[in-house]
Amino acid sequence: MENEKKNINEIENVLVIEGRNPVLEAFRSGKPIDKVFVLDGCQDGPIRTIIREAKKHDTILNFVGKERLNQISDTGKHQGVIAFAAAYEYAQVEDMLELARTRGEDPFLILLDNIEDPHNLGAIIRTANVAGAHGVIIPKRRASGLTATVAKTSAGALNYTPVAKVTNLARTMEELKKKGLWFVCADMEGDSMYGMDLTGPIGLVVGNEGEGVGRLIKENCDFMAGIPMKGDIDSLNASVAAGVLAYEIVRQRMYKS
Amino acid sequence: MENEKKNINEIENVLVIEGRNPVLEAFRSGKPIDKVFVLDGCQDGPIRTIIREAKKHDTILNFVGKERLNQISDTGKHQGVIAFAAAYEYAQVEDMLELARTRGEDPFLILLDNIEDPHNLGAIIRTANVAGAHGVIIPKRRASGLTATVAKTSAGALNYTPVAKVTNLARTMEELKKKGLWFVCADMEGDSMYGMDLTGPIGLVVGNEGEGVGRLIKENCDFMAGIPMKGDIDSLNASVAAGVLAYEIVRQRMYKS
Repeated sequence: MENEKKNINEIENVLVIEGRNPVLEAFRSGKPIDKVFVLDGCQDGPIRTIIREAKKHDTILNFVGKERLNQISDTGKHQGVIAFAAAYEYAQVEDMLELARTRGEDPFLILLDNIEDPHNLGAIIRTANVAGAHGVIIPKRRASGLTATVAKTSAGALNYTPVAKVTNLARTMEELKKKGLWFVCADMEGDSMYGMDLTGPIGLVVGNEGEGVGRLIKENCDFMAGIPMKGDIDSLNASVAAGVLAYEIVRQRMYKS
Repeated sequence: MENEKKNINEIENVLVIEGRNPVLEAFRSGKPIDKVFVLDGCQDGPIRTIIREAKKHDTILNFVGKERLNQISDTGKHQGVIAFAAAYEYAQVEDMLELARTRGEDPFLILLDNIEDPHNLGAIIRTANVAGAHGVIIPKRRASGLTATVAKTSAGALNYTPVAKVTNLARTMEELKKKGLWFVCADMEGDSMYGMDLTGPIGLVVGNEGEGVGRLIKENCDFMAGIPMKGDIDSLNASVAAGVLAYEIVRQRMYKS
């Protein structure tokens, strides 16, 4: 895929697409583009078309100076525009529900809020696979893309476990609720996860280590589940917390009567 | 031992602690801090708290430029603050048993076999603290030292949770068995951890991701505990596996009749 054009290169499994026509073609072909860098002040027709396409596809737009573009550029022929596409293809949330149906299981999804560290994202995709979750949902903003580091840390799980990127995590949760899912969010202040019924169609929401799950997302959750804290410090690494909660879900699913 | 300490960023026998939370935690835990380097002009809340703590503790304060900080930094993630503390001292295994006695709890130790990645070691020390374990035991050979990366990844737990380094892990296990501990080792081939009694004085043995727990160490274990694998790949990240097993121990301790 990355060799189809000489202006498309792979940097850590992110496809870097340079130049007006290659970027326009990428949009037209339906390739998922994560980010577009446009030379600040550039106003000609093709660039305006690219900006319009980017907005239409909810692609993150960055207006940057020439130096920054030159720095990102591999070919030195970016013509004022560079796009980043994921080398791994994102799945749709519907694919995950379908996977659950195929397996005859209640859906079990993991949603990540503001997990920006690719090591954490990779480890969580790995955990999702091993714990039998049907997919991982990440928001478009403030999330790591599916880079080579994520692929490597996932230990191959990225090839099996669907990962979807959504524009609005809260809205996705609303839609999933209509399909019968309920949401539990990892929260230090929450009641002990051991006293909670975590069976049934479930979405586990995990936030980043600094801030936890955002307010809006938290308000959309049905329950807040706390991991009992027995020590001096007050939080686990995000991927460890996700693992501990995911396995409490696994345990309850195995032992529910 | 001298050789294995080469990764510790020691300058004239001091431990370098990097980042806002790790430095704050070091002050809060009462660790004697000799010197703090703060990015000149940095004025946000956490930095101001660190400056106040430094003044309270008569710590030498140095306001320096970014270049100097980067030069001192080992992790490259100093967030504008680096502290020099007295070099970290390894604890003795006996200290851990004493800690358990003081708390009136059955000993709960975590033993690591061949965990060479400092991020995993730091995350496991963090998990050990939060899960209420009384200490972490690592072997002298083929283990990460207590580097700045370990201190940072432990999120301050290194200030509270004793870490002992032993010459011969198998021999240490023998000695602990005489004191009533029994050992469970994390193993893919093991029986499900959910069907096992993990209460009582316990040592949880976790190996590295590639090879798992070494043969000799495994032979010294009383049980092999498996984490149920429901996916396509066959192992979790070492620190996630340690977290999931540690919390199964926590759960059983909480709910044993």
